[in-house]
Amino acid sequence: MLRLHGFAVSNYFNMVKLALMEKGLAFDVNTVHPSQDAEFLRISPRGKVPCLEVEEGIINETNVILEYLEDTQGGKPLLPKDPYERARVRALTKEIELYIELPARACYPEVFFGGKVDQAIKDKTLAELQAGVAALGRHASFAPYVAGSEMSIADLMFLYSIDLACTVAKRIGGIDLLADLPKARELLALLAQNPNVQKIEADKNAEMAAFIAAARAKH
Amino acid sequence: MLRLHGFAVSNYFNMVKLALMEKGLAFDVNTVHPSQDAEFLRISPRGKVPCLEVEEGIINETNVILEYLEDTQGGKPLLPKDPYERARVRALTKEIELYIELPARACYPEVFFGGKVDQAIKDKTLAELQAGVAALGRHASFAPYVAGSEMSIADLMFLYSIDLACTVAKRIGGIDLLADLPKARELLALLAQNPNVQKIEADKNAEMAAFIAAARAKH
Repeated sequence: MLRLHGFAVSNYFNMVKLALMEKGLAFDVNTVHPSQDAEFLRISPRGKVPCLEVEEGIINETNVILEYLEDTQGGKPLLPKDPYERARVRALTKEIELYIELPARACYPEVFFGGKVDQAIKDKTLAELQAGVAALGRHASFAPYVAGSEMSIADLMFLYSIDLACTVAKRIGGIDLLADLPKARELLALLAQNPNVQKIEADKNAEMAAFIAAARAKH
Repeated sequence: MLRLHGFAVSNYFNMVKLALMEKGLAFDVNTVHPSQDAEFLRISPRGKVPCLEVEEGIINETNVILEYLEDTQGGKPLLPKDPYERARVRALTKEIELYIELPARACYPEVFFGGKVDQAIKDKTLAELQAGVAALGRHASFAPYVAGSEMSIADLMFLYSIDLACTVAKRIGGIDLLADLPKARELLALLAQNPNVQKIEADKNAEMAAFIAAARAKH
């Protein structure tokens, strides 16, 4: 049995959860939050979620878990078989993570949790987000999925990164990140119709109020 | 023929170069620097190096290039065959990149290029570097390589990230990042004896003075 450790508000947790659901794999969830407690650091070296527990032990890092599912599990593939096409999907996934998700994340404390982020970091985030979305516009197909006609791991990263990045860019810079990428908006609308995406969204919404309250209490 | 685009001072370029050399693969190099010029953005959506040119086109992002080489080329493997061990190597590689290389990179403009980095960013880098190295200490084997007895892609990421991170931590915080990880130092000493590592270091040193002068002129 696959056991997914994490929580329903985490965007990275939801990437893996959607992969498991799209593949039709059996799994259960251990609800746990990121922490620097010694006990949690034994399963997650940097104290992050998600982790996937498999027979041999624990697997860390979202894209690594996604690759492991491709390597070992059946169900709907989320990476192409052809090595070059596979590399293109992996590159798109990495570009969304490095150039969109991570810069936006630097501003989550202020945008979502009532904390304060230094202006230098906000300026850096805004410049990086605009460059990151421009890069995505150059590399992605949106036909209708990020890499082409099939859903891939790039869509999981896209779905659970771009909405947060858009909120960050709007709040800290008054900018509409997707102004020049109408096809990205169309893909978000398409994905919103997916029943697994809807289930994950419902689970997230059910946990959101308690999560925000707890996070704000810390900031 | 594989063609590697990038330049000899780039640490990510050198990760791929070392993989190609360790595998004994034929390749040539097109020396090119990161840029936001329209022509370069056609091959590298975010204007970064390295890129690997193969028959079908261009592959972006270092870890994606390394995976492509594993998927398609012969020579010494740099990922284990077993899916769980493979996931562990991938996770270690990702953890070094996200939690050590990238935080250090935020301070390169001041530490290496005579520019100025805001104190808020330096404080964030220092905290992240210490947490990142602690995570590496929890997860890595250093027996003698990062993931165990065989060299892997995690060693490439380690070799070309940790020295820069150590310099950053020393300069911005007066901290010895590897104080509690003597085995990491032993691995660096072991890798320094590798003839391919020595060749890459010599190529880097030959380009370094001109590179630093050009970078400082921009900052």
